[in-house]
Amino acid sequence: MYEVKAIVRLDRQEDVIAALHAVPDLPGLTISMVEGVGRRHADAVLEPVDFGRATMAKIEIVVGEDRLTQVLDAVTRGAHTGRRGDGKVFVSRVEQALRLRTGETDLNALQ
Amino acid sequence: MYEVKAIVRLDRQEDVIAALHAVPDLPGLTISMVEGVGRRHADAVLEPVDFGRATMAKIEIVVGEDRLTQVLDAVTRGAHTGRRGDGKVFVSRVEQALRLRTGETDLNALQ
Amino acid sequence: MYEVKAIVRLDRQEDVIAALHAVPDLPGLTISMVEGVGRRHADAVLEPVDFGRATMAKIEIVVGEDRLTQVLDAVTRGAHTGRRGDGKVFVSRVEQALRLRTGETDLNALQ
Repeated sequence: MYEVKAIVRLDRQEDVIAALHAVPDLPGLTISMVEGVGRRHADAVLEPVDFGRATMAKIEIVVGEDRLTQVLDAVTRGAHTGRRGDGKVFVSRVEQALRLRTGETDLNALQ
Repeated sequence: MYEVKAIVRLDRQEDVIAALHAVPDLPGLTISMVEGVGRRHADAVLEPVDFGRATMAKIEIVVGEDRLTQVLDAVTRGAHTGRRGDGKVFVSRVEQALRLRTGETDLNALQ
Repeated sequence: MYEVKAIVRLDRQEDVIAALHAVPDLPGLTISMVEGVGRRHADAVLEPVDFGRATMAKIEIVVGEDRLTQVLDAVTRGAHTGRRGDGKVFVSRVEQALRLRTGETDLNALQ
């Protein structure tokens, strides 16, 4: 299983959720707000500037390996504008999953 | 070491914390609020509906492997109601830990 | 690639960001607020007390392995006061990264 953590524009979060909901058999997801702080650009070494800051939506979803490519495609489809500040996606491994209501584990907990 | 990330009902967070505090020698934890968005159910394909959304508490704690089972049991004990929306738990590996006050690392940083 | 997740004092977050921005070629980062709940101390077994709770800043940044030591040093430099409650840092592996604007992946997505 993999956790997909997408940091996207605040005004694209509903598009990302809609794109994810179009993928069959995806589990639930969570959303929270984070402040994104831009990287330091090379010219800032000579002339320090305010780094860009913006409230971003962080969308997290845990999926089986068979859904990973579809999820990344859906996030890109929902989040992409082509302008600076579209955000990033990070994928990391999840060792165990547990549905608290039923005690189901791992892939069964995601269905 | 493992990170345990529990997404639980808002009104069960204190029960989960109490259940965790009953486990000896656990390190600190963090809590934040997230919006949970339910999965798309099969009937929504024919008749789209509002997906369930609810504010959930996200509780994160990093523990050694020897405490993992106890932590999962404690979270279940505190969070379980048997109704839809009890939430989920995800476990992932942590490679390094560091206590900022002392510079202690890994399991020593968790004690 | 590694995700560095630092839980630091609220009033040290700008020092941590400044220390990170002094490291060349770091990617952007995100900040959010979490509630830290302290561990149970041994004497609390006999005499239960309110566990310390404090709003902390959670700073997350994903970097290549070649920047990991510099990032941990920068976080420590920015966050350390030597008093209880300085917080912790956790490091975990990231399998994939994707920049949504360009489609660049992995280390190219972080530059």
